[in-house]
Amino acid sequence: MILEIARRAKTASKTLALISTEAKNAALVSLAEALLVSSGELLAANAVDVQAARAAGLSEAMIDRLLLTDKRIGNLASDLRHLAGLPDPVGQQFDATTLPNGMSLRKQRVPLGVLGVIYESRPNVTMDVAGLAIKTGNAAILRGGSETINSNRALVKIIQISLGANQLPADTIQFIDSPDRALVLELLKMHDYIDIIIPRGGANLHNFCRQNSQIPVITGGMGICHLYVDESANLDASLPVIFNSKVQRPSACNSLDTVLVHKNIAENFLARIVAELAPAGVTFRAEPRAAALLKEQDPALVQPAGPDDFDTEWLALILGLKVVDGLDEAIQHIATHSTAHSDGILTENNENAARFINEVDSAAVYVNASTRFTDGGQFGLGAEVAISTQRLHARGPMGLAELTTYKWVAEGSYTVRT
Amino acid sequence: MILEIARRAKTASKTLALISTEAKNAALVSLAEALLVSSGELLAANAVDVQAARAAGLSEAMIDRLLLTDKRIGNLASDLRHLAGLPDPVGQQFDATTLPNGMSLRKQRVPLGVLGVIYESRPNVTMDVAGLAIKTGNAAILRGGSETINSNRALVKIIQISLGANQLPADTIQFIDSPDRALVLELLKMHDYIDIIIPRGGANLHNFCRQNSQIPVITGGMGICHLYVDESANLDASLPVIFNSKVQRPSACNSLDTVLVHKNIAENFLARIVAELAPAGVTFRAEPRAAALLKEQDPALVQPAGPDDFDTEWLALILGLKVVDGLDEAIQHIATHSTAHSDGILTENNENAARFINEVDSAAVYVNASTRFTDGGQFGLGAEVAISTQRLHARGPMGLAELTTYKWVAEGSYTVRT
Repeated sequence: MILEIARRAKTASKTLALISTEAKNAALVSLAEALLVSSGELLAANAVDVQAARAAGLSEAMIDRLLLTDKRIGNLASDLRHLAGLPDPVGQQFDATTLPNGMSLRKQRVPLGVLGVIYESRPNVTMDVAGLAIKTGNAAILRGGSETINSNRALVKIIQISLGANQLPADTIQFIDSPDRALVLELLKMHDYIDIIIPRGGANLHNFCRQNSQIPVITGGMGICHLYVDESANLDASLPVIFNSKVQRPSACNSLDTVLVHKNIAENFLARIVAELAPAGVTFRAEPRAAALLKEQDPALVQPAGPDDFDTEWLALILGLKVVDGLDEAIQHIATHSTAHSDGILTENNENAARFINEVDSAAVYVNASTRFTDGGQFGLGAEVAISTQRLHARGPMGLAELTTYKWVAEGSYTVRT
Repeated sequence: MILEIARRAKTASKTLALISTEAKNAALVSLAEALLVSSGELLAANAVDVQAARAAGLSEAMIDRLLLTDKRIGNLASDLRHLAGLPDPVGQQFDATTLPNGMSLRKQRVPLGVLGVIYESRPNVTMDVAGLAIKTGNAAILRGGSETINSNRALVKIIQISLGANQLPADTIQFIDSPDRALVLELLKMHDYIDIIIPRGGANLHNFCRQNSQIPVITGGMGICHLYVDESANLDASLPVIFNSKVQRPSACNSLDTVLVHKNIAENFLARIVAELAPAGVTFRAEPRAAALLKEQDPALVQPAGPDDFDTEWLALILGLKVVDGLDEAIQHIATHSTAHSDGILTENNENAARFINEVDSAAVYVNASTRFTDGGQFGLGAEVAISTQRLHARGPMGLAELTTYKWVAEGSYTVRT
């Protein structure tokens, strides 16, 4: 079954690679309409998943993640329309040059081919990936969570009918319609047909893919993020940055996990951080030096940091606090505990800023800015496929161009190598 | 043992990433000198390998591959000096922009980290990879063939002493000094320490790495390459291109394997190909239509193509010949039989050239040029790490920049996300 799906995806990808930008955009707009027209059908399928989730005793937070509503369907449709308006990376030419022998040489963007996307719970990922794949001329094989299998089946049915009506291959978007986990293992071995595996989910899913895949895997999404407050920082201006990084959306991977504070400013500034963030519901985990400076605080608010606390991605209103002797210790702490996602320095010292930029090896390095900017939309990429914390192909926010590769195109006049 | 090597490489890579271009270039020049000074020692170690290879009954061609001579050592030294003169990709900034909120954003090249390079026979690869790694600030773990273990041990000793004398970490270049194959399997699982696996060898080695690696693998080097001679081609000018593609260096992966000839010109032109290439020692494998047109030829020169002949990378003076009805059949044949390395069209028809460029999905696509140009040096990259036929990270010839990744650098004024 998987082999058949993979083969069909490969065949579809060859057709897709040659489809015009206009046809792809028309298909996206048409799919947005189909989604709205079929919302009743979708909500009915989703209700089956929600009922099963309730019966299985899933938490309300989990149920909310898999819930579709008219409003959410509307958002999916407008995301598709937005995507239709973005530039098409396929066909873009770059690095053009003329060689000394007169041969012209350039690179030209082409689709990656076939994407394998493995994700959990949220059915909106299904439409999100379908849109990105259509836009970039890639075929995609989707494997969603078993909790949303009815919603995904309904979504993929709408997608495939809409694709067919727009003269695009229905196999552009396929869906593994079975909760059997062995099929995922099979999928990860289809290296002759699938070009990239994109897991969207927690660390376990990423590790599973990396350990079992014979296809390159884009791992990412895990962020243990730091801000280092240098002695020279404008402290009044730093507080809102810390607040924004931690509080604006604590469940995001680019939200702040640990603040490192220079020892010379720690005594007052740690207390100011607590005063600023506690009203928003933040609690704190302080290492001994920081804890000593905060010993007057409510122990429910400021707890001593446990042994794993600085290696934890909180995804919640919890913030680690640590006093450091200076930039060296801050860089060392980040090298040891960061997941190389997003880390920043708050400073007025240009030399320290330059050292931080060079020496902190994270996908995104910030000077005097919130870690929350690590995002395809915020970085102006128009759309976001994933945030990569691995080093090959793409690092940090991946946009449409990162779902392409290139071919070299050389044009000569019957030119031979001497 | 492998874990220890991998950990040391990771540690070295962190130091290396911050070393200046000047220091890296000085280390390369110094290594070139060390190589010449130690040539006696090197030749003695190499003689042990050569003797063992003779005793084991290896072919003279194989022995030549592992042989070091004064001249070859001289070439290695001058390659290192050449490398020292090339631009350093590390630190290069690109895609710089200022976001609407005033935050400046750019990408900055950083080393990949740790390279795992697995190769066969030729000891020159050891020095080649060492030079590329030093230049790009990457650490490398080398696993050479057991036939050259004495030569490699001597080379790596020279490298490590020279690195130490230049204040670079000796662990920049490490070598797995054991023929035990189980160690390669262990190496392929060190995803916490090694960032990329580069196999340099045949298809079996590439497949082994892809099947067993938990680290991204750059596969490549296998080329079943085609030229399609369109009805409109300048035939007089096409013959030298075919000759060059096939004969200039038949053992190279970018050498020609199959010529596809438009049916309307095949009758005369096939015979001209045979007449042009046969004196250079080329023999031919013709599919039935081509064979029928060449039935007057010496059967030792033109044999009927066997069932696997069009799926064989010849690496020898053998050329497949096939008549096609036109561009569609040519593109279809290439899609079925090419390894997506290097394929070209010879034509005077711009529309057919454009279709070929768009529809043939190979790493390098040529119009009116020899397939032999697919090479880092020929493409002006200065150096070549590998030729990738996979689709992620880099495609076709990989130069120094392809041994780097990037970080995003964002500089704000205490900027927060709204």
